[in-house]
Amino acid sequence: MQAARLHEFTEEMESALSIEEVDRPEPGHGEVVIEVEGAGWCQTDNHVIEGMWTDYMDQELPMTLGHENAGTVVEVGDGVETVSEGDSVICHPVMTCGVCRACRMGEDMYCENLEFPGLNRDGGFAEYLLTSQRSVIPLPEGTDTTDIAPHADAGITAYHAAKKAVTKLNPGDHAVVIGVGGLGHIGLQCLNAMSAANVVAVDLKDEALDLATDLGAHETVNPTNVDVASAIDDMTDGAGARQVLDFVGADETTELAPDIVSAGGDHHIIGYGGHVHEPSQALVNGEFSFVGNIVGKYTELQELVSLVDRGDVELHTSRYGLDDVNTVAEKLEHGEIEGRAVITP
Amino acid sequence: MQAARLHEFTEEMESALSIEEVDRPEPGHGEVVIEVEGAGWCQTDNHVIEGMWTDYMDQELPMTLGHENAGTVVEVGDGVETVSEGDSVICHPVMTCGVCRACRMGEDMYCENLEFPGLNRDGGFAEYLLTSQRSVIPLPEGTDTTDIAPHADAGITAYHAAKKAVTKLNPGDHAVVIGVGGLGHIGLQCLNAMSAANVVAVDLKDEALDLATDLGAHETVNPTNVDVASAIDDMTDGAGARQVLDFVGADETTELAPDIVSAGGDHHIIGYGGHVHEPSQALVNGEFSFVGNIVGKYTELQELVSLVDRGDVELHTSRYGLDDVNTVAEKLEHGEIEGRAVITP
Amino acid sequence: MQAARLHEFTEEMESALSIEEVDRPEPGHGEVVIEVEGAGWCQTDNHVIEGMWTDYMDQELPMTLGHENAGTVVEVGDGVETVSEGDSVICHPVMTCGVCRACRMGEDMYCENLEFPGLNRDGGFAEYLLTSQRSVIPLPEGTDTTDIAPHADAGITAYHAAKKAVTKLNPGDHAVVIGVGGLGHIGLQCLNAMSAANVVAVDLKDEALDLATDLGAHETVNPTNVDVASAIDDMTDGAGARQVLDFVGADETTELAPDIVSAGGDHHIIGYGGHVHEPSQALVNGEFSFVGNIVGKYTELQELVSLVDRGDVELHTSRYGLDDVNTVAEKLEHGEIEGRAVITP
Amino acid sequence: MQAARLHEFTEEMESALSIEEVDRPEPGHGEVVIEVEGAGWCQTDNHVIEGMWTDYMDQELPMTLGHENAGTVVEVGDGVETVSEGDSVICHPVMTCGVCRACRMGEDMYCENLEFPGLNRDGGFAEYLLTSQRSVIPLPEGTDTTDIAPHADAGITAYHAAKKAVTKLNPGDHAVVIGVGGLGHIGLQCLNAMSAANVVAVDLKDEALDLATDLGAHETVNPTNVDVASAIDDMTDGAGARQVLDFVGADETTELAPDIVSAGGDHHIIGYGGHVHEPSQALVNGEFSFVGNIVGKYTELQELVSLVDRGDVELHTSRYGLDDVNTVAEKLEHGEIEGRAVITP
Repeated sequence: MQAARLHEFTEEMESALSIEEVDRPEPGHGEVVIEVEGAGWCQTDNHVIEGMWTDYMDQELPMTLGHENAGTVVEVGDGVETVSEGDSVICHPVMTCGVCRACRMGEDMYCENLEFPGLNRDGGFAEYLLTSQRSVIPLPEGTDTTDIAPHADAGITAYHAAKKAVTKLNPGDHAVVIGVGGLGHIGLQCLNAMSAANVVAVDLKDEALDLATDLGAHETVNPTNVDVASAIDDMTDGAGARQVLDFVGADETTELAPDIVSAGGDHHIIGYGGHVHEPSQALVNGEFSFVGNIVGKYTELQELVSLVDRGDVELHTSRYGLDDVNTVAEKLEHGEIEGRAVITP
Repeated sequence: MQAARLHEFTEEMESALSIEEVDRPEPGHGEVVIEVEGAGWCQTDNHVIEGMWTDYMDQELPMTLGHENAGTVVEVGDGVETVSEGDSVICHPVMTCGVCRACRMGEDMYCENLEFPGLNRDGGFAEYLLTSQRSVIPLPEGTDTTDIAPHADAGITAYHAAKKAVTKLNPGDHAVVIGVGGLGHIGLQCLNAMSAANVVAVDLKDEALDLATDLGAHETVNPTNVDVASAIDDMTDGAGARQVLDFVGADETTELAPDIVSAGGDHHIIGYGGHVHEPSQALVNGEFSFVGNIVGKYTELQELVSLVDRGDVELHTSRYGLDDVNTVAEKLEHGEIEGRAVITP
Repeated sequence: MQAARLHEFTEEMESALSIEEVDRPEPGHGEVVIEVEGAGWCQTDNHVIEGMWTDYMDQELPMTLGHENAGTVVEVGDGVETVSEGDSVICHPVMTCGVCRACRMGEDMYCENLEFPGLNRDGGFAEYLLTSQRSVIPLPEGTDTTDIAPHADAGITAYHAAKKAVTKLNPGDHAVVIGVGGLGHIGLQCLNAMSAANVVAVDLKDEALDLATDLGAHETVNPTNVDVASAIDDMTDGAGARQVLDFVGADETTELAPDIVSAGGDHHIIGYGGHVHEPSQALVNGEFSFVGNIVGKYTELQELVSLVDRGDVELHTSRYGLDDVNTVAEKLEHGEIEGRAVITP
Repeated sequence: MQAARLHEFTEEMESALSIEEVDRPEPGHGEVVIEVEGAGWCQTDNHVIEGMWTDYMDQELPMTLGHENAGTVVEVGDGVETVSEGDSVICHPVMTCGVCRACRMGEDMYCENLEFPGLNRDGGFAEYLLTSQRSVIPLPEGTDTTDIAPHADAGITAYHAAKKAVTKLNPGDHAVVIGVGGLGHIGLQCLNAMSAANVVAVDLKDEALDLATDLGAHETVNPTNVDVASAIDDMTDGAGARQVLDFVGADETTELAPDIVSAGGDHHIIGYGGHVHEPSQALVNGEFSFVGNIVGKYTELQELVSLVDRGDVELHTSRYGLDDVNTVAEKLEHGEIEGRAVITP
């Protein structure tokens, strides 16, 4: 089968991955083989190519990238009981053991034996993907497997942070979404679906803010023209926003925290473009937190599929063939991808 | 009456405050006058003297310092119904309006009209203190008002962080206390009283670690001899500590977070000696949080008084007269105060 | 001024209250006088008239009823700082002391010194109402004080239960609303505004179910034609509903719990028409709870006002003069009130 | 191998089970065989014998009873990775699929494919027990497998309820334990280990109350001599107990709820000797809940093993041979078992 593989870490996006012929995988006990019909391309793919993940994951090259996968089950191993051949599924991005304490608590992402196709083993930029039955979620009838693919990682990461945020959002509170890109525009919709907070979108691009308004943002702020802290201060009568979802995570966005987060509030770090840098005293006096957010859990992907099925969350995608992977990588680097790019191998 | 007052911000602790005669205050509606029998000296007093709080509080000098107060009610204003003359009380450190939304939610420290005796109006390093009936808590019979005074701020700050931490601590989990000083040794006892976590004390001084062991720490680590991250890794089979209470808040302690906090865990910032500085990616991949912690609420001081009354929390104090305030400031600067200094005006 | 007063407990609704002239109240310290522009009539008023509340409240007759009040501030006592003459306000139904531990935790309804105009002191079926500044919430500009009045009790009771329920509702979960009457139709809208659960309305009247559908219910069940337990079993693939809001509280509705509530779920008791009667073993094996729900808190009324202001919750009202109170009582007894009756004294 | 089996439901405890020879089980994929070294006898065993569980479980007779098991792994099936031959283990009482949504959320007891050795398949009153690797928890070195066995069900049921209760218990609050028997005396210790609440033990037997005092109860009440509601009213200054753990669940104990549970509090149903019967209005006005409690989760058994290992929870056991099972059943029926009976096959 054809697969798009990384042979060495590089800054050269235009030649990052090579398309090559590899063996189609075979399923072991509890494993399934998926014919990939959609594999979302994610900022993280660019980061993996650049080697930014070597500190956080054991990565052996060459490796097939692609961790936002959906498609059809074409083969199942022994002991597989939750799906069968022909089922349309979306793949939770990690493979978990199911028996460590983290798994037993439902915390898939903390699994002690976690494997991450596309990050530390072969992923979905290929005709077929090998994964575990524990990773697949059957889709409601009529779901388009290509369109839904990016929810497998981008979607649940945004959903996961939004779900944490809504537990603290009362009607009348403000929630700020910084960065209305691939993840941010999903996060915004999740906030609206699950809370009655006033959602404020912050982005440097006016088109992104227009999209935000279309998707239900109650207010928008473009830092190019407006001082973000003053704007939020005005909207909240000086109280600050109870929850901030920072999908950028750059130095300039995290440093907003003491000025825009209310006492007792949270600045969620989801994007990871830069640093958090604050005097400890700022956290003490404002009693706010910087809250790290990893990819969502398996059960959260089930919940997100429900939101999508209800029509509460829509996702803008554009489709590319397997041969286009490097073009996509290059374009994303320059902010030229509209919506979310999905590879259709 | 005599009062110890700050006339200008200074680094010179030995002459920071001047003892002078001022008018004894008179209570307005809902206010009470307390004869101060104990007023704890806190690291924050040194910080106030140095001007570190001018960014966070409106401070008009001269001002009587002292925000950890206990004593006897000697006069009450109209409308005071919860206490009467002769009652022994401990004072919650802030005066709150009771009618803003924060107050209505029980969040005293977020009061929109908050006043803070000793930080932005006259405090308790004086014979008498004016405060609100909303700030005083009657003490169980037999409580020593001098000994309990430091709980008014040091105590509830430690308690507040510990209370947040225990909501996430299961038996078998590890909680790390960094800095077994005035607040840390209280926090440690609170953790033990309210959870069955394994408490690990970290301090540069062996005497502090000995105290920690006496007070119930299950393990101790001295960073002078041992690598903290490795030690905690060993104790937790690589999982990390679920909760870290950082009573130091220095650059060297906050930077431990990605290596010692478990996935899903929190690094509580209580001390504020330095900065938080981390790549956003560390928070994302480890899904941990830096959690700011302000002073505890009125109801938390009630709870802490219960803990003290049960004998679950003991506090080491040393007593000084009002004339000794500058000596205390000086000694604290050099780490020469044993236990918590309490001024007995 | 004119007031509608109860002189003795009775089953005779058509002559329950007498309209009489009484003194207009004067505000003490912290108190306010409201010109009543809307006072909702509630099932509880009928219950009070019948004497059903004598076990739960100290009630001295004669007493002016009416506990869902809104209007304009016409006089304020000393020490009132949150409102001034001319402000449009809605009144939280109880007067609280602000200094007991319950008040300090934000739990208004548990106040140790609680007074309840219309239940244990004079209420709002009168031209003027005396209450505390702690009870009033300024309304957003343009709010109709007559239309919003029933939210003061019916509204926040429904909101309070819905708010507790949504903390446990994930997308894909089912929430059942039993009884789409005065409270139920508000609860249903609150669930939709604050969660992405599938809302199932249950009512004996088809018109009520039509209203439910108009207001956003995803499914409806009429127990006259359909077995409720089977219907919910089908909708939830046998899992049951995670949250049930029982606005009826009759024997026939509470007994549904073991068959319709999912493991780990709650059957909220809001209406109180009958009893809970279950074998303990049913609660053990199904691990569900019967959750009591009292009137919402002051801060919850603030939140509900936000929901109304956003247009997320609409309320059907019909207006009656003060002279019509007994007609309203009589009609409600026979289920002949359309929407919520509001007295406009 | 020898096994104690039930052939028909009966009230005759003295001849309830018959000891007979059956085949030793063989492990399938993911399964393990345990040599049983301790199998606790539980009130539920008597209830199963009487047929009280037929409504809640599919039960085919004959069946080997025994659901509180611990021992040594003697054989493992394919794919078993968490334990190996020779490991000392305690068995979580149920076998779960690991792939349904409940399992994925960590809610073992809600597993859609749950099997319960001793309740719906062969249990541990036998020389060997077949179970899943998902059910076993390795024990700390030095743990006595016979002594710890009853924690497998009695222990985690008590722990599970106590863990839910402590999330709402602040220092100064009161927690009432009704029934200091096999489960109650564990629950009491768990409350003390994980909270700083004042624990009040209620039992009809003075010896049980003496045991409670030895194990750390702060107050005791014998309903034979004292009115429980008045006693708790006095202890709590009229506020009531924030949490009640009812290990009896009889009509006389559940009816205490409105009089002894504080506003916002919970009456946990753990024992199931009778009914809950209350007017809905009592739950509404007191805003308390009847909270059902099933057996604890796998991860809760891990936590309880930690508590036992710390010495925080001790369990009084008395040992009996396999031949004594009917004697044990008979004695328990008459309240003549001291501590917890453990069968040592």
